[in-house]
Amino acid sequence: MPPTGLVIDETDAHKHHDYKLHFDRAHSNGNGTQLLERELEEDDIFSEVHKLTRYSDGTVKLRNSNIELMDQDILYHLALGSESHDLQEMFGDVKFVCMGGTPKRMENFAHFIMNEIGYKLPAGHQLQDISAYSYRYSMYKVGPVLCVSHGMGTPSVSILMHEMIKLMYHSKCHDPVFIRIGTCGGIGVEGGTVIITEDALDGQLRNSHEFTILGKTVHRPAKLDKKLARELKSLASTDDPYDTIIGKTLCTNDFYEGQGRLDGAFCEFSENDKMEYLEKLRENGVVNIEMESTIFAALTYHAGIKAAVVCVALLNRLNGDQVNSPKEVMNEWQERPQILVSRYIRKVLAQKGQLKALFGHQGSIKSPRRFKLVQQESQAHE
Amino acid sequence: MPPTGLVIDETDAHKHHDYKLHFDRAHSNGNGTQLLERELEEDDIFSEVHKLTRYSDGTVKLRNSNIELMDQDILYHLALGSESHDLQEMFGDVKFVCMGGTPKRMENFAHFIMNEIGYKLPAGHQLQDISAYSYRYSMYKVGPVLCVSHGMGTPSVSILMHEMIKLMYHSKCHDPVFIRIGTCGGIGVEGGTVIITEDALDGQLRNSHEFTILGKTVHRPAKLDKKLARELKSLASTDDPYDTIIGKTLCTNDFYEGQGRLDGAFCEFSENDKMEYLEKLRENGVVNIEMESTIFAALTYHAGIKAAVVCVALLNRLNGDQVNSPKEVMNEWQERPQILVSRYIRKVLAQKGQLKALFGHQGSIKSPRRFKLVQQESQAHE
Repeated sequence: MPPTGLVIDETDAHKHHDYKLHFDRAHSNGNGTQLLERELEEDDIFSEVHKLTRYSDGTVKLRNSNIELMDQDILYHLALGSESHDLQEMFGDVKFVCMGGTPKRMENFAHFIMNEIGYKLPAGHQLQDISAYSYRYSMYKVGPVLCVSHGMGTPSVSILMHEMIKLMYHSKCHDPVFIRIGTCGGIGVEGGTVIITEDALDGQLRNSHEFTILGKTVHRPAKLDKKLARELKSLASTDDPYDTIIGKTLCTNDFYEGQGRLDGAFCEFSENDKMEYLEKLRENGVVNIEMESTIFAALTYHAGIKAAVVCVALLNRLNGDQVNSPKEVMNEWQERPQILVSRYIRKVLAQKGQLKALFGHQGSIKSPRRFKLVQQESQAHE
Repeated sequence: MPPTGLVIDETDAHKHHDYKLHFDRAHSNGNGTQLLERELEEDDIFSEVHKLTRYSDGTVKLRNSNIELMDQDILYHLALGSESHDLQEMFGDVKFVCMGGTPKRMENFAHFIMNEIGYKLPAGHQLQDISAYSYRYSMYKVGPVLCVSHGMGTPSVSILMHEMIKLMYHSKCHDPVFIRIGTCGGIGVEGGTVIITEDALDGQLRNSHEFTILGKTVHRPAKLDKKLARELKSLASTDDPYDTIIGKTLCTNDFYEGQGRLDGAFCEFSENDKMEYLEKLRENGVVNIEMESTIFAALTYHAGIKAAVVCVALLNRLNGDQVNSPKEVMNEWQERPQILVSRYIRKVLAQKGQLKALFGHQGSIKSPRRFKLVQQESQAHE
């Protein structure tokens, strides 16, 4: 029953991988024609996928005809349902879906982006965790921006992605962009560096994610949108007191042995083995390691959704395993991907003329000095 | 520099798998000698693993000599450190580590088991989430019982297991028992059935978990303690208004395509394909599907820790994909594995004479009727 176009990105994962290697070699020789050819081929594939994943009005179409035949589609892990909730009314205006590991980080991001895009809550309102009753993921909505936690590791992200893509469909969202905001270990880059993923690689350095479906192994390309990556990179400012780079990301299924750490409950390799491995990664263009990028890339690509992964390195793994920077420093580092993503969201909203209230917006506070005095007075009267 | 004993459960995973198949065939022919031989061989392996994983006083020993050389071992995802906290003082008395998916379920279980074992909090005390500042896992301690959430999927469990095993080591715990309390989809069993895992199988039906370590594929046996499984089964009561069974558990990396569901964001197989697959699982003795058992079994086994997985089925997958039972029913179902595990914990504590205060224990409430009246009176005075 698979739609015809499927063959392109299902069974040809390895072909793409070979092509990629071929391209890299050509590219490193400065061959511009090869680069152009590759981009043209990618455009062709993208337009094939686009036909399968968009209705003519630009809203998200599912590659699963079963869903429209269902009486109700329960998105269990989001605590939402297609008939219990008016999903189009709730989420129809979503343009950006930002995801990150912990509920706390995404709650922080929701408040941060609210300020950045000048989104104003009416008096007496506060943000609510839309998925609180799932007890699994947290979801906050700030106008066109949805902020969702995805937990740790590819299976946790997989469940969320299925339900978020279905949410986009039920809500009739137009061309949403998905961005993962994360933390990672750097390879040869210092802690605090912001890394935009060019390609997501699995543990075998394949640019794909391995699925087991009905007992059979299926590879889907773990491709992210190259143009979006470049656009994000272009929004790094020379005034930023840190580097923002593009590179390959290794996605692992474990934090300890799976990332060559010596400090897990088990360790059956030497420090030399570890360093050889990390060097091999560096030689292959890997600049960071995390645990979610391949599934995030594979499922967004399969759904024809433009996506990017932006992480901050918490340490340089060539120097050690344990993360030792003070909490305040790490908290500041974790804001850096958020700042980059907020610049992108502001830019897109401004281009669409949807960022009216941003500059000079004061919210409900007329005078910050007097506001503080009133707060202090109020607290003093017990 | 792996310790010698490693060879047993590392590289011989497939041998074990073959042995397992051989055994199953022999066993189904009713060959009692084969059964005995297998148990004897398993006992041998267990005592080999035991030498590597226990000090002579019975406390947990790590299969990683790097840890004792470290200035401090930070258990990041638990918000604990080996030098910042007195881990032996905090956790030295832990006998049972119970794990489950969501923070909410484990908080509920902590309160449930507190009541069941008659553990009394001093006046004005309440349980605190020990790992709250990790923003990842939640951990509650009720005397000898540690209740920890592990998130969804094997990578999330993997991170937690490394840190829990290291926590047992730093705390000098004696022979702790790890039990996963979960939910699952049943195969040919009705919703509400309690299932104790006999063997955990991966997506290819192998009784092992596949790791990628320094880019190489390693299989470790996903073995659980057979005697513990039987002991748990023996604690099911004929008065329980539901079945408690032992069987094989399939562990997948996804909830939708990975479990043959038709209602994911993608579906590239027919209902017939799905049913054929589920039937094949049933023929192989699989009675339930979840997403954590292989890593839980593989890492506890490798650490020489006695472990079990007890899940309740939320639906019979042979009848459908969506979970439709009312919330009240599902909440009651989710208590069932907790009840079984609490019977086991009570039994062990009673055997050790550590369950003094259980029967007839009233806590701080002398008269429940008068307690309620006082609460009502108090609420009425505003």
